[in-house]
Amino acid sequence: MTTADARTPASEPNAQNAQDAPNAEAGKSIGWHKGYVQGSRPDLRVPVRQVHLTNGKDVTLYDTSGPYTDPTIDTDVRRGLAPLRENWIISRGDTEEYAGRPGRPEDDGLKHTSPRGGLRNLDAVFPGRPRQPRRSRDGRPVTQLAYARRGDITPEMEYVAIRENVEPEVVREEIAAGRAVMPVNVNHPEIEPMIIGKRFLVKVNANIGNSAVTSSIEEEVDKMTWATKWGADTVMDLSTGRNIHTTREWILRNAPVPIGTVPLYQALEKVDGRAEELTWEVYKDTVIEQAEQGVDYMTVHAGVRLPYVPMTARRKTGIVSRGGSIMAAWCLAHHKESFLYENFEELCEILATYDVTYSLGDGLRPGSIADANDEAQFAELRTLGELNTVAKRFGVQTMIEGPGHVPMHKIKENIDLQQEICEEAPFYTLGPLTTDVAPAYDHITSGIGAAMIAWWGTAMLCYVTPKEHLGLPNRDDVKTGVITYKIAAHAADLAKGHPGAQDWDDALSDARFEFRWEDQFNLALDPVTAREFHDETLPAEPAKTAHFCSMCGPKFCSMKISHDIRREHGGTQEEIEVGMAEKSKEFAAAGNRVYLPIAD
Amino acid sequence: MTTADARTPASEPNAQNAQDAPNAEAGKSIGWHKGYVQGSRPDLRVPVRQVHLTNGKDVTLYDTSGPYTDPTIDTDVRRGLAPLRENWIISRGDTEEYAGRPGRPEDDGLKHTSPRGGLRNLDAVFPGRPRQPRRSRDGRPVTQLAYARRGDITPEMEYVAIRENVEPEVVREEIAAGRAVMPVNVNHPEIEPMIIGKRFLVKVNANIGNSAVTSSIEEEVDKMTWATKWGADTVMDLSTGRNIHTTREWILRNAPVPIGTVPLYQALEKVDGRAEELTWEVYKDTVIEQAEQGVDYMTVHAGVRLPYVPMTARRKTGIVSRGGSIMAAWCLAHHKESFLYENFEELCEILATYDVTYSLGDGLRPGSIADANDEAQFAELRTLGELNTVAKRFGVQTMIEGPGHVPMHKIKENIDLQQEICEEAPFYTLGPLTTDVAPAYDHITSGIGAAMIAWWGTAMLCYVTPKEHLGLPNRDDVKTGVITYKIAAHAADLAKGHPGAQDWDDALSDARFEFRWEDQFNLALDPVTAREFHDETLPAEPAKTAHFCSMCGPKFCSMKISHDIRREHGGTQEEIEVGMAEKSKEFAAAGNRVYLPIAD
Repeated sequence: MTTADARTPASEPNAQNAQDAPNAEAGKSIGWHKGYVQGSRPDLRVPVRQVHLTNGKDVTLYDTSGPYTDPTIDTDVRRGLAPLRENWIISRGDTEEYAGRPGRPEDDGLKHTSPRGGLRNLDAVFPGRPRQPRRSRDGRPVTQLAYARRGDITPEMEYVAIRENVEPEVVREEIAAGRAVMPVNVNHPEIEPMIIGKRFLVKVNANIGNSAVTSSIEEEVDKMTWATKWGADTVMDLSTGRNIHTTREWILRNAPVPIGTVPLYQALEKVDGRAEELTWEVYKDTVIEQAEQGVDYMTVHAGVRLPYVPMTARRKTGIVSRGGSIMAAWCLAHHKESFLYENFEELCEILATYDVTYSLGDGLRPGSIADANDEAQFAELRTLGELNTVAKRFGVQTMIEGPGHVPMHKIKENIDLQQEICEEAPFYTLGPLTTDVAPAYDHITSGIGAAMIAWWGTAMLCYVTPKEHLGLPNRDDVKTGVITYKIAAHAADLAKGHPGAQDWDDALSDARFEFRWEDQFNLALDPVTAREFHDETLPAEPAKTAHFCSMCGPKFCSMKISHDIRREHGGTQEEIEVGMAEKSKEFAAAGNRVYLPIAD
Repeated sequence: MTTADARTPASEPNAQNAQDAPNAEAGKSIGWHKGYVQGSRPDLRVPVRQVHLTNGKDVTLYDTSGPYTDPTIDTDVRRGLAPLRENWIISRGDTEEYAGRPGRPEDDGLKHTSPRGGLRNLDAVFPGRPRQPRRSRDGRPVTQLAYARRGDITPEMEYVAIRENVEPEVVREEIAAGRAVMPVNVNHPEIEPMIIGKRFLVKVNANIGNSAVTSSIEEEVDKMTWATKWGADTVMDLSTGRNIHTTREWILRNAPVPIGTVPLYQALEKVDGRAEELTWEVYKDTVIEQAEQGVDYMTVHAGVRLPYVPMTARRKTGIVSRGGSIMAAWCLAHHKESFLYENFEELCEILATYDVTYSLGDGLRPGSIADANDEAQFAELRTLGELNTVAKRFGVQTMIEGPGHVPMHKIKENIDLQQEICEEAPFYTLGPLTTDVAPAYDHITSGIGAAMIAWWGTAMLCYVTPKEHLGLPNRDDVKTGVITYKIAAHAADLAKGHPGAQDWDDALSDARFEFRWEDQFNLALDPVTAREFHDETLPAEPAKTAHFCSMCGPKFCSMKISHDIRREHGGTQEEIEVGMAEKSKEFAAAGNRVYLPIAD
């Protein structure tokens, strides 16, 4: 398996079953299909999106959509995905199955004291194969960090090396140094491994989750597959309402990407929403419950310490992080140091036994331009740096969450400080939003900040949808959020000079210059909308092969003229200069036609 | 008139005729109305958008929407807008009315050789009051640059000083130094003056224009008022099809903002689309035709010189500027230096007599990431610097156009070079687009680049709509493009630390923190969509006064907790620290309730 292979897959088992783009006709060579790059072992096949151009070339793109886009695989959300990594996990011999924590009605937000107490929401229970949870056999870390430190290149590392077009050793080194994480809970064998670190492609997370106000299990599972279809690299399930445990089970069993959660949300449900009644025991129980299900990374707001709470009192928008405000309320109520901070080492021990990755939450992130980069925010960041060191000591993979609302001129300070304080642990930011004045367009206010902070080193971007601050995202909002953030991430990959990143832009620009409309659509981040927009103005099928577009029309075309120039001057600079006057005469003799005149 | 007055208008003639926001009920104090700030003379009244908050405060926002949003003014597109500046122009005594160039059928793209030759498209002719064109009485420049240089503060300068919340002398200085332009043709007296320069608020241009393929006059006029309603500071009419003269007349007579054009487009129509048949005479005639109509600024691609054309031959996407490729085709066909470059001084003389502002076009801007910052692009920029110096010598206001497609790490070089080469003349950029891979989302790929380059000093941003590269923008696309670019512009104003820019963010964030939903909507860049998105999840009217939102629901609310913290710790840091333990007890005694528990 060489680096070059990732761009020209050695094996394409599905080539005969190519899933063509929506409008492709039978027999046409255009379109794309799901391909695989074969790794060093038969069960290590890395999915790619193989775009077939009309000029006979292929372009290979990173693919996050999972088995759902492979027509040879019969997926069924009621059965769940195949446990791709199961043998890799078992063959390491350092984990064991065990009975696990018994399920309880309150896991699903049902009243423990209700007359129907003890009943689960049986109609909704995931019907797939029964499974027992798995954990470290001896309590020692079974994390990719631990393996990387002792020099092992796991199948997971080889897998992401192929995806990222780098040598596996680069992956191992970055993980060992704590500069990258690979969220892969041993209880989520369905995952297609991916890596988060500044040396690698910038990643995008999509948040989904019902709330007390709306949504259903089916909607949430659908939102997850929908988000990954458009390119989400990870998905956070931020559900807060009822059926929280069951919804998560459905999502995990069907998720080809890492799933993140905020265990505090479910813990709060278990104490009926009373922040002050939270205890370390309830929280810990929730973490174990979720780790057994297979949650790959967890946001932990352990940096919201008691002394920092008053620092937020004179802020314009106080504490806007839900987790942050829960912990602040707890600290206030008890006038005690945060139980997450106090019990952080024990939490590390738990996470290490499942390989759950920390996402150290920024509970005091600014919620407005006015509050950006303030005392509270940076006080918490320094604590996150301290906790990062502790987590590493326990072999737990760790990333650090970042803001929030930050004007452009204050963005760089965030990533620079984080990298310094947290020993280059991956930064995972929400935007940041560069202005507060555009509710309904916060995917854009934040996409601007996201692209910039990713260029400067942020490893993963948490998307923001158009509904931010206003309501819950629907399918369209999820798609818009993901596409916007894929743009930000790819723009950052280009700006960082990520090897191979520009190949995609070049392929699309070549297609544009050569009027290969179908190739433009198929290479687009969103082929469906690109095609629709084109067809709105020029709907006819011939327009897709026409050597003009609706901007200039057939009478005059800029691109056409450039082609003439290239034809005239395609040689070396010398040939060009010598031959120019002569060519000019030929051009005139040929009628000077650089466009097709149409009747007036 | 002091600076402070601009934020607290001295006079609000329309206060009794407030136009409330769509959902406001009679008697409610919420909403907004068109207000005016009175200047030093009775006919100098600067429009503002006055937002009335439910807490009794007012927020004053910059307003580009013209008389259309003033319910006391009876507008009629068939009559046109009142000639606001007419007396200012006349009273300067340096211009005269004259017969003007006679209209010709080919001005509207009608065949001069057709049997119906000589007929205008009479049905479409603008029916408003007849007018004669105006020009300099003695050929000397009647430009704001000339006035500023001799120390005059014109009513136009006072007008923009009020709009920008600066002293009029600052406006005069910036114009005199060539660091700012105010596009105000003496034949466009309907205009509400605005200024473009890095010391001022970042401006946004919206392109409209029919093409050979689609659109009508009515649609184009409507697109113009629609664009200014959402915040476009200037509008470029890039029409290329038939009725080009007549469409422009309708637009100008109804435009409260400066109108820009690319005269080369119309000149090309006059020679039946044959680039090689263009002549200086046809071009010059077109410039005079448009100057007499009142076009405020013109894109002139005089920097596309013969020696630069071969530099584009090995580009990935050649020449993508329509004007650039027309001139390249002409240079190629004749193997001669560009007639625009050769006749630039005469062009300056013409523009100076109407106060038409130059927008020196970047005909060789990159059309793909691969071509960014290349030899051709910067060769042309150096020529634009040379032409800028010539234009200034003739007293012509000048701005410089910029790219295009540029990855983030190459953006800063563009603005830095331009500012150096062009003696800080205002930069006016198209995006730039930071990646090529997202057709249908190029408002976003370019909004990212636009925000960054504006932060670094670009004075005006030319919007890009979702239809870029794919088709012609419809109303929705125009709105999306404008809003996206207003976000980029405002984010840049914040990052530049523009005085007062953050007041808007602060007002909206205060409203958000205090759950004043109606105020959030009314302060939003797009109140309509913000309200719609909120109502999708929580449609009921009471939800707009509820102290929670759909993200967390009524059971738990982050903002609510912050309010409790503020209540607890609103004092000085000392008081906070001393009183904290005690307060914590009170908080517990009061039931620890920071949310409203709801039934399970």
